[in-house]
Amino acid sequence: MPAETMDELVSLCKRRGFIFQGSEIYGGLQGTYDYGPLGVELKNNLKAAWWRANVYERDDMEGLDASILTHRLVLHYSGHEATFADPLIDNRISKKRYRLDHLLKEQKPGVCAAVAVGMGLEPNTDIATLVAALMADPERAAQAMNAARVVDPADGAPGDWTPPRPFNMMFKTTIGPVADEDSYGYLRPETAQGIFVNFKNVLDSTSRRLPFGIAQIGKAFRNEITPRNFIFRVREFEQMEIEYFVKPGTDEHWHQHWLETRLEWWEAQGIPRAQIQVLDVPKEDLAHYSKRTYDLLYNFPTLGFEEIEGIANRSDYDLGSHTKAQSELGIQARVMENTDSTAKLAIQDPETGKWIVPFVIEPSAGVDRGVLAVLSEAYTREKLESGEERIVLKLKPHLAPIKVAVIPLAKNKEEITRYAKDLKRKLQALGMGRVLYEDTGNIGKAYRRHDEVGTPFCVTVDYDTIGKSQDGSTTLMDTVTVRDRDTMQQERVHVKELPQYLQERLR
Amino acid sequence: MPAETMDELVSLCKRRGFIFQGSEIYGGLQGTYDYGPLGVELKNNLKAAWWRANVYERDDMEGLDASILTHRLVLHYSGHEATFADPLIDNRISKKRYRLDHLLKEQKPGVCAAVAVGMGLEPNTDIATLVAALMADPERAAQAMNAARVVDPADGAPGDWTPPRPFNMMFKTTIGPVADEDSYGYLRPETAQGIFVNFKNVLDSTSRRLPFGIAQIGKAFRNEITPRNFIFRVREFEQMEIEYFVKPGTDEHWHQHWLETRLEWWEAQGIPRAQIQVLDVPKEDLAHYSKRTYDLLYNFPTLGFEEIEGIANRSDYDLGSHTKAQSELGIQARVMENTDSTAKLAIQDPETGKWIVPFVIEPSAGVDRGVLAVLSEAYTREKLESGEERIVLKLKPHLAPIKVAVIPLAKNKEEITRYAKDLKRKLQALGMGRVLYEDTGNIGKAYRRHDEVGTPFCVTVDYDTIGKSQDGSTTLMDTVTVRDRDTMQQERVHVKELPQYLQERLR
Repeated sequence: MPAETMDELVSLCKRRGFIFQGSEIYGGLQGTYDYGPLGVELKNNLKAAWWRANVYERDDMEGLDASILTHRLVLHYSGHEATFADPLIDNRISKKRYRLDHLLKEQKPGVCAAVAVGMGLEPNTDIATLVAALMADPERAAQAMNAARVVDPADGAPGDWTPPRPFNMMFKTTIGPVADEDSYGYLRPETAQGIFVNFKNVLDSTSRRLPFGIAQIGKAFRNEITPRNFIFRVREFEQMEIEYFVKPGTDEHWHQHWLETRLEWWEAQGIPRAQIQVLDVPKEDLAHYSKRTYDLLYNFPTLGFEEIEGIANRSDYDLGSHTKAQSELGIQARVMENTDSTAKLAIQDPETGKWIVPFVIEPSAGVDRGVLAVLSEAYTREKLESGEERIVLKLKPHLAPIKVAVIPLAKNKEEITRYAKDLKRKLQALGMGRVLYEDTGNIGKAYRRHDEVGTPFCVTVDYDTIGKSQDGSTTLMDTVTVRDRDTMQQERVHVKELPQYLQERLR
Repeated sequence: MPAETMDELVSLCKRRGFIFQGSEIYGGLQGTYDYGPLGVELKNNLKAAWWRANVYERDDMEGLDASILTHRLVLHYSGHEATFADPLIDNRISKKRYRLDHLLKEQKPGVCAAVAVGMGLEPNTDIATLVAALMADPERAAQAMNAARVVDPADGAPGDWTPPRPFNMMFKTTIGPVADEDSYGYLRPETAQGIFVNFKNVLDSTSRRLPFGIAQIGKAFRNEITPRNFIFRVREFEQMEIEYFVKPGTDEHWHQHWLETRLEWWEAQGIPRAQIQVLDVPKEDLAHYSKRTYDLLYNFPTLGFEEIEGIANRSDYDLGSHTKAQSELGIQARVMENTDSTAKLAIQDPETGKWIVPFVIEPSAGVDRGVLAVLSEAYTREKLESGEERIVLKLKPHLAPIKVAVIPLAKNKEEITRYAKDLKRKLQALGMGRVLYEDTGNIGKAYRRHDEVGTPFCVTVDYDTIGKSQDGSTTLMDTVTVRDRDTMQQERVHVKELPQYLQERLR
């Protein structure tokens, strides 16, 4: 039973140290978030699971980690300078700015119909089509919106709307000490471009043949007009992207392969297929580079079904856009003429000797959205027999921020704390992830806290462990209590058997 | 025997896919680098080793991952807006810009002496002191430099130098859709500030007491005037930073603790103490926040001893700068008055109930410089008995990008390739890091290539393995050849024993 509202997730994240607002003590920097002690472990575990599945466990993949600062020509030829924009509109009265489609979605029924009619369209026109029409004729758009009394969500009053215009979402910055018009670059809006421009470098240093892929995890930046919904729509986020290069003609086969592979992977992270909708993006909504795209939509609390991954068939658009000698390569996609690239981004067919510009299948997942989906799916509110309620985060063990908490039952008994610290060190050395020495609060509170953060096992060291049982017996010496997060069952386990006991259950 | 020149390292990095110039196909973006298939593994392994040692294996540390985009007030109160600048100077003839200290270091003997005399100083004045004097009187500085005929390294001719001025090294960018004077932020110039501003968040969600630390790994950005020396001085880089919070008065003790601890860690990464100089930074060279700083300098090829880590005693400057209610807290450092912070960044003494602003010890290491040092130290050129030479990267096993290469001796014998792929999968599942299925080139070339990239073991599957020895015997069935990178010795090992054989040697 996943989380019911986004609010309960946000509250847990702040309270337990998963995620905080960025620059919070100065009022917050909108659209940025900081991962706290548990969040950083969960996020790193999710990234590691992706890297393991996509780089280590396949024989056809290489990794990459390209820089965030990007030459403006990369984003010129990729098409981002010209087209990576959202529709922006101002209210002259409140001075507020909105993303046009978000503004329309927040109107009462009938308002959008009136705007559509004002634009000469059917009243039941969908929002995407309506936005396209408004952007195509900005002056008439302003008239239609003002006539329809489109309200400003900030104050609920009809606005005095300007003509809408495109707003480029890339962050620009001056690079180097000279602030002239050539000395700027961008923060990458996606990690993908770093892969395309390194295609030849990777090929030259690894001697790969088609099909093969390049995988990358890293930050990307988009200057969202209205960041919202916690870590769902932010200005700084992290991506896990694969660009999988294939022979033209085999692209549709590989597109299906990756759709299946990625659904399986999400399932292994604790997100059942029933919670994911696969959207075959309609032709008219496809990005300019895409031949076909599947969006994986997760059923978020409060938000409903929203994208956690896109799997696009990008055709030969990207390598074709960034290659030199375009005219010799028979590129199928419509690309801008490239007069700057110094590299041929193609591969020679080992049989025919002909140069091929590979097609690209791109499974592109959001790390932060993945974290949110995993948290949401794991979040469980349980009624106990006692009538009390507990919150337990039923994370897959490989994702849990803390694998095992080692708890000394008496904090002031040096023999017990020493034993517990020593045991923590031994379990830590097994390489399973973070093992915590937990000496705050009483045992009941510790269990409750570790339920809430998803720690699969709590191990308690007590008087029996050190051979000082109340009844004087030493039969329980060197045994500890192991408590299971999900069943709440406790078992007495000998410390010698503990490593294997935990390793089997944490795998 | 480490690398002798930086050039041989750069060449290896490009050839074998460790590190490429950023945005290379468009002429390169100066000061940015992309990590290729092997570089990303080496870098991730180094970061994981640091995280393991500093977060997992200690009981007094929490992790964090804060955002790169930073509120301008964070960098205002940290002092970066006012003081994070390098001295910049222009040559009116060539239109080139230089960092003043770098320019002076490249002059012929006698030139700096003449500049010093022109400024009324002793001829043997050191460069740091000279730069300070030049910046304090920019007009006279220009006169002195022009009179001393300071040459431009670009063309070797004396320049027509402008008065020097400070150049702020932070990258600035507009955040949000409104480009007015309040709507900007910075790319963080260090990860440290994200830790300080989250001090209360971490405290509230973990109930830590002093002493404890917060650790973070992440990108930082500095708009260097003249990036240089490969990945040593770049505009985008990665840091591994600890802020360790202690009771005032215990700070000197903990400063020594961290100096020792960090030297041990570098040694475990393959950098012997003899290759590191510890510089006790002279009082007059200390940063404004520092009470005392040790710099760890590694003996880089070509460059000589240069910093890979700084370990600073930052006193209570940082928390004192970012806290509200400064006047009530008895802050010892000289801090700017803070009228914006909403959080008290202090901790209550559990015994006296008094609020304490902790002192901070900061071990701050460069990931990229660490990668370069590790590569340099591992780089070995060996004369073989045959008279040939081999290059071998004697990386510690935990840092090696590829742990094991599994090589099918015959690429066209399906029984052998299937066996090898299956073995690769089994070894991969042990969780030791990347295991590569290697089927390019002949066996000799594969060994040579894996020597060069530091793969500790090559495992070869041949006809004997599949029970089809030339002599018809099956005694070697299910055994493979294991070749050791350093000794080049080959051993026949049964596949059943292989996991343990490798795990013992790779630990």
